[in-house]
Amino acid sequence: MKPIEQCTLGILGLGLMGGAIAMALRNRGILPAGGADGGRILACDTNEEVLAAAQTAGVIDRGFADAETMLKECDLVFLCLNPSTLLCFMEDHMAAFKPGTLITDIAGIKGSISAAMEKNLRDDLDFIPGHPMAGSERGGFFNAERCSFCGKNYILTPLKRNKPENLKYLQALIHRLGFGRITCIDAEEHDRKIAFTSQLCHVIAAALIDCEADTAITRFGGGSFEDLTRIAMLNVPMWAELFRENSAELLRRIEQFEGSLDALKRLIAEGPPEELEDRLARVRDRRMAMRQKS
Amino acid sequence: MKPIEQCTLGILGLGLMGGAIAMALRNRGILPAGGADGGRILACDTNEEVLAAAQTAGVIDRGFADAETMLKECDLVFLCLNPSTLLCFMEDHMAAFKPGTLITDIAGIKGSISAAMEKNLRDDLDFIPGHPMAGSERGGFFNAERCSFCGKNYILTPLKRNKPENLKYLQALIHRLGFGRITCIDAEEHDRKIAFTSQLCHVIAAALIDCEADTAITRFGGGSFEDLTRIAMLNVPMWAELFRENSAELLRRIEQFEGSLDALKRLIAEGPPEELEDRLARVRDRRMAMRQKS
Repeated sequence: MKPIEQCTLGILGLGLMGGAIAMALRNRGILPAGGADGGRILACDTNEEVLAAAQTAGVIDRGFADAETMLKECDLVFLCLNPSTLLCFMEDHMAAFKPGTLITDIAGIKGSISAAMEKNLRDDLDFIPGHPMAGSERGGFFNAERCSFCGKNYILTPLKRNKPENLKYLQALIHRLGFGRITCIDAEEHDRKIAFTSQLCHVIAAALIDCEADTAITRFGGGSFEDLTRIAMLNVPMWAELFRENSAELLRRIEQFEGSLDALKRLIAEGPPEELEDRLARVRDRRMAMRQKS
Repeated sequence: MKPIEQCTLGILGLGLMGGAIAMALRNRGILPAGGADGGRILACDTNEEVLAAAQTAGVIDRGFADAETMLKECDLVFLCLNPSTLLCFMEDHMAAFKPGTLITDIAGIKGSISAAMEKNLRDDLDFIPGHPMAGSERGGFFNAERCSFCGKNYILTPLKRNKPENLKYLQALIHRLGFGRITCIDAEEHDRKIAFTSQLCHVIAAALIDCEADTAITRFGGGSFEDLTRIAMLNVPMWAELFRENSAELLRRIEQFEGSLDALKRLIAEGPPEELEDRLARVRDRRMAMRQKS
């Protein structure tokens, strides 16, 4: 790979995350507009209004309605698509990539993508699956500015076939985008962990809102209700797909959570008081230990 | 009541909330140190170190280990105690208040306190139960600076016997402390609403931490896991007491939540997909409507 400053970087899907990646590339001076080294940011999206706005704002150098035309020019591609769209896209456009292109994605589940790429990717391409742990409850390109990468976690689930130098290259770029810790694990482990830290949290937030119809309840809210339910403003098709795709692991985690909730419920109902306090103290200590590790 | 600038204001319990109230009184120029109008902030606490630190920092004018000595001087008293401690305190120290004192509290449940005060309060005192919807997962006076009141909700559950002019007086003070909306409702309604917006949220956060022993899980966390579990770092004796005191309503709310969680679980497991999406879309729309009302 040539130095990132000289690369033509393509973003497929200029939504919240694609937009935020482009903005970070610009704002951090990695691929500045009219950069002296010839690097460029291209983007492909079905929404022409978004492409025009991004180009006018100088966030991208050029927008494409047609992916094949863009891919011919790219050295490095970020696929910012929902998992199922991504798999279809790769099937349909495998031939369009330039030889040697380094490809990565941002999808919230990795098992199916990793399996498909391990098997079907062209030999002269490299695909490193990734998952930036950043986002915003307001989706789309026009909210991309709200999506901060600063110090956030990033997970990579490298394939056996990935070139070590490409992995290093991508990790360096991710750090330059502002992310903090990068964790490399296999796709199955990723999906198991994410079922808990991300999908279960979204299901819980949704259930909390689901069980109270009175929207004026917020006048009785402190910060905790706000914090627990902000993510209930979800990108519905994306999350429905993530839940279904990872359903076995997610259902296991929901049941685990139900077990803990039930135990607390019984202690609240029946005591003994010191057992409730002991259990809450263990929770408090564990959460404080998590803070120190994060 | 005399103008607040001329009042001697007593804070009983100089913890997170008592400390934050004193700081807001100072920082917002309501009762400045060495104020020209003679107003003062006194505080009583069992922790001498806290009293000394608060006095040195100029947050209070004088600290008291003995409540009776302080109460003799106060025109207005904030009781910043846990509910059960508060009830015992009022029983033991009813005689110590100056005639005409306006008293308020900050406890997170109101039913038992309102009932006791409606019945047992001295005729020449006025007690307006209150609940500031602010806090921090880190408790105690030394974290009081982290506790912002700015724009937060405040709930008052006035007694039938409260003097209208005192209620107005307290409301004006609450706004000057920085709070936004003040809602007046009866104590039972307060306890019903709070079981959902506050106590249920804390039980859920605790259950989430309870069901995962691996503290290194945070490296797979995005903002949502952080947001949902921050309040699991709880003040254990206080929350255990709030849960138990309001257990009937809280248990009803936990079961309601379990019902919604179960419905989502079934849709994730069995579909149909469009029904899951419909339900999530309803949740999203409801949460967005809540944002507009808050």
